[in-house]
Amino acid sequence: MTLRIIATGGTFDKHYNELNGVLGFADSHLPDVIKRSRITISAALEVVSLLDSLDMQDADRQKVLAACQAASEKAIVIVHGTDTMRETAEVLGPVVKDKTIVFTGAMIPYEIANSDALFNFGFACGVAQTLPPGVYVAMNGTIFTWDNVTKNKTAGVFQHGAVSPASAEKPEEPATSDEVAGSGS
Amino acid sequence: MTLRIIATGGTFDKHYNELNGVLGFADSHLPDVIKRSRITISAALEVVSLLDSLDMQDADRQKVLAACQAASEKAIVIVHGTDTMRETAEVLGPVVKDKTIVFTGAMIPYEIANSDALFNFGFACGVAQTLPPGVYVAMNGTIFTWDNVTKNKTAGVFQHGAVSPASAEKPEEPATSDEVAGSGS
Amino acid sequence: MTLRIIATGGTFDKHYNELNGVLGFADSHLPDVIKRSRITISAALEVVSLLDSLDMQDADRQKVLAACQAASEKAIVIVHGTDTMRETAEVLGPVVKDKTIVFTGAMIPYEIANSDALFNFGFACGVAQTLPPGVYVAMNGTIFTWDNVTKNKTAGVFQHGAVSPASAEKPEEPATSDEVAGSGS
Amino acid sequence: MTLRIIATGGTFDKHYNELNGVLGFADSHLPDVIKRSRITISAALEVVSLLDSLDMQDADRQKVLAACQAASEKAIVIVHGTDTMRETAEVLGPVVKDKTIVFTGAMIPYEIANSDALFNFGFACGVAQTLPPGVYVAMNGTIFTWDNVTKNKTAGVFQHGAVSPASAEKPEEPATSDEVAGSGS
Repeated sequence: MTLRIIATGGTFDKHYNELNGVLGFADSHLPDVIKRSRITISAALEVVSLLDSLDMQDADRQKVLAACQAASEKAIVIVHGTDTMRETAEVLGPVVKDKTIVFTGAMIPYEIANSDALFNFGFACGVAQTLPPGVYVAMNGTIFTWDNVTKNKTAGVFQHGAVSPASAEKPEEPATSDEVAGSGS
Repeated sequence: MTLRIIATGGTFDKHYNELNGVLGFADSHLPDVIKRSRITISAALEVVSLLDSLDMQDADRQKVLAACQAASEKAIVIVHGTDTMRETAEVLGPVVKDKTIVFTGAMIPYEIANSDALFNFGFACGVAQTLPPGVYVAMNGTIFTWDNVTKNKTAGVFQHGAVSPASAEKPEEPATSDEVAGSGS
Repeated sequence: MTLRIIATGGTFDKHYNELNGVLGFADSHLPDVIKRSRITISAALEVVSLLDSLDMQDADRQKVLAACQAASEKAIVIVHGTDTMRETAEVLGPVVKDKTIVFTGAMIPYEIANSDALFNFGFACGVAQTLPPGVYVAMNGTIFTWDNVTKNKTAGVFQHGAVSPASAEKPEEPATSDEVAGSGS
Repeated sequence: MTLRIIATGGTFDKHYNELNGVLGFADSHLPDVIKRSRITISAALEVVSLLDSLDMQDADRQKVLAACQAASEKAIVIVHGTDTMRETAEVLGPVVKDKTIVFTGAMIPYEIANSDALFNFGFACGVAQTLPPGVYVAMNGTIFTWDNVTKNKTAGVFQHGAVSPASAEKPEEPATSDEVAGSGS
């Protein structure tokens, strides 16, 4: 099994600049992330861009598509900003049929306390190896197909759906763990 | 999709006791892990035990089996020590056929810098939702069936195999990321 | 020895809001900071404000002065934004003569990787107990009197001086450690 | 002002070995600690040893003394194990009169969550610059002279005293922060 990790930026990879107090980009954190994860399958990292997904133009999304098409690997994880993850998935979805592509990202940057980044990256690296060819989004411990996902910005989670949840329907809040009685302790 | 997380201890959940300098167990870290992962599917946590897997007896492994059999969920992640993860998987493997059970753990405790714990937990939560029913081990970004996995203690990684690698064959070392030329930056 | 810790905000106490991607303020981190520091002398925490020091008005600085004057403790640490730390120190310096007041802060928020916050806080808690009464700034492992300190925003460090370093004189860069031959290893 | 940092090991600098699960020593963390602290005064690092202080012999303590005597700096911070910090301080105390030497360490290793290491290091770097020549211990946000300090192993804190607290007198527990009403929020 060989995996390709494509970095495009996003909150996941943001870096705090102490001189101006701005969260922007420096080098990707993914080399460190991959190293600490102790991944023994082949995992090639390709940094396509380091952008906030709100700043992505169609040309940027086309670069992501091109990188996927050029890849020899059949399993690809794309680290991407959450705000327009869907939009890039929509560029790939109708086109890429021969590979399993899993988009993921983070609500809290990898370098900030309590980040979901490493969990999401692990989750995506897993399901990229097991899902059938197609384009997916993996966030909040949930797998979505590219055409059935939307970001609920109010709740800060991803949900099934084709459009933004404009109605007041109750969003899925991040779950707290429900401890249940076990067989011992 | 509903998930059950079963905690049994292991390096993943070890806690440094500052009064005696020993790495042992206090409360499981899994409630915090689940919360920071922002999991929106139902994820019930059950603490069956908090043991170093070198200290697990057959009765402890039977408790894990019993917890799996009693679970209503079809997808289960078991956080377990790495030293005898295989042994417990061997207790479940021949018996549990109607659920997807994924063992994972960590080489470095969750509370220590550079831990692989959160990556492994995310990976396992993902593949538990996609693998067909059966018993698996997920470590090092790799999926193993319960009957084809062994821990290479010298290299600190899991490999395919039915027995410990007593020979001097070259173990799979954790990969560093191989950066490749991308389509932009 | 009793200490008072006065929180006013600043980069030290900033918190990442995952819903809008902004670094702002939630609860102060200082209760956790004090707890993990295992401080056995009496250390009373007072949250006067949680402001970016660029947003501080004269009324805000007067509140800090009032808190210092009202305090029964003779040793006070003030956690403050670095951008106008000097300005608040200038309000206290000519007036407070009977207490040792030490301003500190951080260039990187406490909750972000590689933060200087905890080092600075420890440093300030130490020198607040040993310096003679007066008003000081403690940043970059250096002690400054309130009337001889300025923030070099280009280099991101504090230096001696009465005005901002408008000239091109070489700023003091944060030192890397110089390892020297020891008597053993 | 120039500072010398002398590393001798201790819990502060312990490192988790993932292959055998043991907390031992690898390279000192102090280069990283000094770098993230953004120290602008000269701070020379000397690694004299990396030992658990329970394993220190008289010869090891003599090495520490020799390093202090050879140092050109007048302010020295010694990072040392807490269990026999007093014993080494007792070797230096009667002898070193022309420098300010401050011993510190940690109850929780620097690389483990909630460590007091960085706070203690900052505290010591501060008071090393302000205390009169002599030998001191700085732990728990408290300054002790070398001849009036003892480690209360039951409570995991340092206290004034010349002998271990064999009696059942109530030890000083690490304080939680007492929040008091402030002049604003």
